[in-house]
Amino acid sequence: MDLFDVIKGRRSCRKYLPDPVGEDLVEKIIEAAMWAPSPANNQPWEFVAVTNRDVIGKIFEEADYRKKILYEKSGWKWINRYDVGFLKDVPLIIAVLGDPKKSGADLFLTHGAEAYQHACSAAIQNMLLTAHAVGLGGLWFTLFEKDSIRQILNIATDLDPVALVCIGKPGGDPFPTPRKEMKEKIRYIS
Amino acid sequence: MDLFDVIKGRRSCRKYLPDPVGEDLVEKIIEAAMWAPSPANNQPWEFVAVTNRDVIGKIFEEADYRKKILYEKSGWKWINRYDVGFLKDVPLIIAVLGDPKKSGADLFLTHGAEAYQHACSAAIQNMLLTAHAVGLGGLWFTLFEKDSIRQILNIATDLDPVALVCIGKPGGDPFPTPRKEMKEKIRYIS
Repeated sequence: MDLFDVIKGRRSCRKYLPDPVGEDLVEKIIEAAMWAPSPANNQPWEFVAVTNRDVIGKIFEEADYRKKILYEKSGWKWINRYDVGFLKDVPLIIAVLGDPKKSGADLFLTHGAEAYQHACSAAIQNMLLTAHAVGLGGLWFTLFEKDSIRQILNIATDLDPVALVCIGKPGGDPFPTPRKEMKEKIRYIS
Repeated sequence: MDLFDVIKGRRSCRKYLPDPVGEDLVEKIIEAAMWAPSPANNQPWEFVAVTNRDVIGKIFEEADYRKKILYEKSGWKWINRYDVGFLKDVPLIIAVLGDPKKSGADLFLTHGAEAYQHACSAAIQNMLLTAHAVGLGGLWFTLFEKDSIRQILNIATDLDPVALVCIGKPGGDPFPTPRKEMKEKIRYIS
């Protein structure tokens, strides 16, 4: 599938069919992640591919609880309408873990270790693009406290669960989300 | 160009020809960036496309100075051999600025505003893939203090210069960088 079509056609998917994702596709998606760039090619990522229903159920419970807390704290009305029930159906969640020690130059700059998160994010974008290209839906999900996810997935405290990537066959057409005009977003220094 | 070929074929480019990048390609690369996912579709990014030689010269000076500081602090021998002189030749640098206020749920979670950086990083990966697909080289560059780049590019203090993306015709074949074995990086919870 052509790159630009994939980039423009990808949408966040929040409705999944329960059909399992084949192991070959899981590996293809993670291989795509691993070709992302990283500081000094440190490859500061690890992947936990979760298909266990009990564990996915715990992730749903964490997200559903966190949603309520978020609504109380933010007062955002839309968050109350945001149904995270799709997490009970999604056949595959890939947790992307970052290693702050592998951040490269950042470690010696004022802002500190950030680049490991950037590299993991580039890896996640490769995953979402690849999922879309093979006809799967994907979602970059971060509505959780990191310590809760560490506990649920048995992740060492020195690794950062940057995001959970939900993947599966889409259960409907994702909601199209518009983009702002380019001229609002660019400035030229010529 | 096929997605997976682009993902696997992309390499960090550190040698550029001075030929200018056409405005149509600059816009295509930034349009690709803007199709990245973001928290609640907040699109927390802005782009500064720099072709002015004096300004690019100042970016080179900042990177060259920071490299020396980094070498002193880290003792990493490779950093001393890392020639940032390519920054004097690169025809185009696109600064990607993130807005922490547009981080979504993170703002109310323990770890705080991170998601705006993730979204910008996904946007940058789209840029690098698109550059590669149209035959250009790209580099995700972060060897700078953010306040220095804010000053050079006249960026408001509430925006975060997440990275500088160097883009131009490659002046040679980029160094191929290997990847670790997938089995070292995956754990399954089935």
